[in-house]
Amino acid sequence: MERTLIAELNTKKGETVTINGWVSVARDQGKMAFFDFRDRSGMVQGVVFGKPEVLEIAKTVRPESSVAITGIVNERPEKMVNDKVPNGDIELEITDIEILNLAAELPLDLDAEMKLETILDNRPLTAKTQRARDIFKVSATIVQAYRQALISRDFTEFQAPALVGSDAEGGAEVFKVEYFKDRTANLATSPQLYKEIMTGALERVFTIAKIFRAEKSATTRHLSEITQMDFELSFIKDHNDVMDVLETVTRETVQAVAGQHASVFERFGTSAPLLPNDPYPRLTLLEVQQILKEKFAVDAIGETDMEPEHERLICQWAKEEMGSDFVFVTAFPTKKRAFYTYPDPNSPETSRSFDLLFRGLEINSGAQRYHDHAEMVAEMESRGLSPKNFEFYLMMHKYGVPPHGGCSTGLERFTARMLELPNVKEAVPFPRDINRIDTLLSKVE
Amino acid sequence: MERTLIAELNTKKGETVTINGWVSVARDQGKMAFFDFRDRSGMVQGVVFGKPEVLEIAKTVRPESSVAITGIVNERPEKMVNDKVPNGDIELEITDIEILNLAAELPLDLDAEMKLETILDNRPLTAKTQRARDIFKVSATIVQAYRQALISRDFTEFQAPALVGSDAEGGAEVFKVEYFKDRTANLATSPQLYKEIMTGALERVFTIAKIFRAEKSATTRHLSEITQMDFELSFIKDHNDVMDVLETVTRETVQAVAGQHASVFERFGTSAPLLPNDPYPRLTLLEVQQILKEKFAVDAIGETDMEPEHERLICQWAKEEMGSDFVFVTAFPTKKRAFYTYPDPNSPETSRSFDLLFRGLEINSGAQRYHDHAEMVAEMESRGLSPKNFEFYLMMHKYGVPPHGGCSTGLERFTARMLELPNVKEAVPFPRDINRIDTLLSKVE
Repeated sequence: MERTLIAELNTKKGETVTINGWVSVARDQGKMAFFDFRDRSGMVQGVVFGKPEVLEIAKTVRPESSVAITGIVNERPEKMVNDKVPNGDIELEITDIEILNLAAELPLDLDAEMKLETILDNRPLTAKTQRARDIFKVSATIVQAYRQALISRDFTEFQAPALVGSDAEGGAEVFKVEYFKDRTANLATSPQLYKEIMTGALERVFTIAKIFRAEKSATTRHLSEITQMDFELSFIKDHNDVMDVLETVTRETVQAVAGQHASVFERFGTSAPLLPNDPYPRLTLLEVQQILKEKFAVDAIGETDMEPEHERLICQWAKEEMGSDFVFVTAFPTKKRAFYTYPDPNSPETSRSFDLLFRGLEINSGAQRYHDHAEMVAEMESRGLSPKNFEFYLMMHKYGVPPHGGCSTGLERFTARMLELPNVKEAVPFPRDINRIDTLLSKVE
Repeated sequence: MERTLIAELNTKKGETVTINGWVSVARDQGKMAFFDFRDRSGMVQGVVFGKPEVLEIAKTVRPESSVAITGIVNERPEKMVNDKVPNGDIELEITDIEILNLAAELPLDLDAEMKLETILDNRPLTAKTQRARDIFKVSATIVQAYRQALISRDFTEFQAPALVGSDAEGGAEVFKVEYFKDRTANLATSPQLYKEIMTGALERVFTIAKIFRAEKSATTRHLSEITQMDFELSFIKDHNDVMDVLETVTRETVQAVAGQHASVFERFGTSAPLLPNDPYPRLTLLEVQQILKEKFAVDAIGETDMEPEHERLICQWAKEEMGSDFVFVTAFPTKKRAFYTYPDPNSPETSRSFDLLFRGLEINSGAQRYHDHAEMVAEMESRGLSPKNFEFYLMMHKYGVPPHGGCSTGLERFTARMLELPNVKEAVPFPRDINRIDTLLSKVE
């Protein structure tokens, strides 16, 4: 019989149907057996009674087995109706069970709270939990809504390379790759130079690129392999044009997640992010420090960057005072940002840069970039970088790249804060860090 | 003045506007200067006359400079109208020129045909050509249409890791990564095992993942870094269910490209791919070999795979005889496919596998996979693989993964054949191969 999706069952009352799915719950009650089944579309209860040959099979079916179930879609008696759950008014009277793949006895209680290590060590099993499926679906909605918002504004997607010749950012935390005999390549720490090159040709571009950082510390905010959602646009006046696009894109992304996943926020005991009616607050670093001092008695004035605790406090302020889960921080010191960051012409020690904080965490970093060839070369030299090593990149400046800027959002961080997960590693099915590639590295080797 | 997009100019006849864009052509004719300008939306002609101070600036503007141009949108005299090009009925009477970034003298004629090496060595400049922009836009449409077709069928996107502990496919062509002190990781050659794991939880999943192959040969079909569009689905009967989805997805992708890029096909001297009214032909490997023998006098009967020339010939047959630019080839020998490929239960030496050929080239490979734990373990052992090394992956089989299958399309190959490019390296802005990371590796080091 043709398969019916579980979500369509309540249009089939009284009919005999076949569903395909997994066993979420199996309860053997002697002469009867009760089940919860799920497929990609939803959940439904099923019951076996008065069919000894089916009951015999039913008693062998362990949770997480995959099955094909044939049965009659019955309306539940009125007192058994549960209108709080989908399909709470029906149950499947099972007439046949085909076991497609019988699961072994589970080594874990999938409904219990688990340590992150347990979740990750057993990912092929723990990916099946409601919590994990919720996170993965929210993450998928984020990335697609983010892309859609950019595509609808004439941004063209491109694939930035992961294998690069040398490290663009000049950082130490780079993974080396043995590239064919006698040669070494690096894993990209950013698609930055490539998206600038592309913006010089296509005007507005984006890339969803893997980047790799050999972070030696294991924190709740860092991964070795990160999915970055990067965009870049030409013909800007300054970094405010980039923030305008980013604000629109993140608003539309939050609206997509809120629209599609209301029940997920409920299950996670949180709510959809607060979007202010006014624009997101835009504060300079100094303004942030003044608020920290006045409101929280934290004196960070004169510091050149923000501590994680400062990020949390200013987000608390933005939420309470401005009704916003997002807040921009601008005007970071030029020397603290990457070499391609454009300084404010009126006070060159300050850059036309910004971070976007979301629910206590920096999820995006952006800026206007240098477009003038002579200025870019001079900046490189003042930082001790050799323009000769950047000949490929500098071709862009030489041949007319317009004033441009862009930014980069970490998908895992955006997902984690969207659902207020305690650790960014839970926001991705297969996180990599200093100790882990799937199972602990010591085990893999 | 607020910027007007070039595509909107013909709604502004008689008005004074400001456009931002690049200079495609600059012709100094003494008392007048003519220009072609382009932005992300289109092209327009501009002219300077009777304004000595503007003319003076105009004479300094070299091609590929980025500029802000203010002028009056004039209707062209009737005999100057060119209705073959967009904006062929207007020209901009330039009243002001602001040079945003002056380009140096170009080292190349961007309108001339260039060798692939020249294109790639000068990518920041050659990305600006019409040809390159056309290719990149078609590629962006392909990947988005492919995703959209999957999302609309309940597939959930996930991010497959690039850093892996050991090579899933057991092949030799793997890049090694120095992963923190004393540890080695590998770059993924396929997201296969991860998408199978995810299909065990989410039923239908896809991933647009980078994969890495240390191909020692430099051919027109191979890259070191590839963008794969992978999907996998559960509750299938056999590999035909996978082919059904793939056929729908590739049809919708071709329709999206044909709908959005008619002028690109024209510029490339080709046409949108042929989609048959009937389903794509599905031939077994043996049937292919019989056709090769009968129609082309090529005797390959008994061979276990297809040569590039066989792929070209069977595609020629499919186009001429079946009106299809796509053709499926099925039933490859089990021993020639990866260890997770499901054998045909009725003749286990043949697998439930397929390739999808498109305009002479394999662009996709897929199959049903093992779901039963005992069968998978036995297959591994028969191939000399140690199930202990696959404990993580095998958890999926142990805990009820449904019968499932999937496939993988190479974005660069799909793009290359869509536009009939001679080399897959032209289909991606920054291709990597044995000799090249941006510029030749010897230069980068």
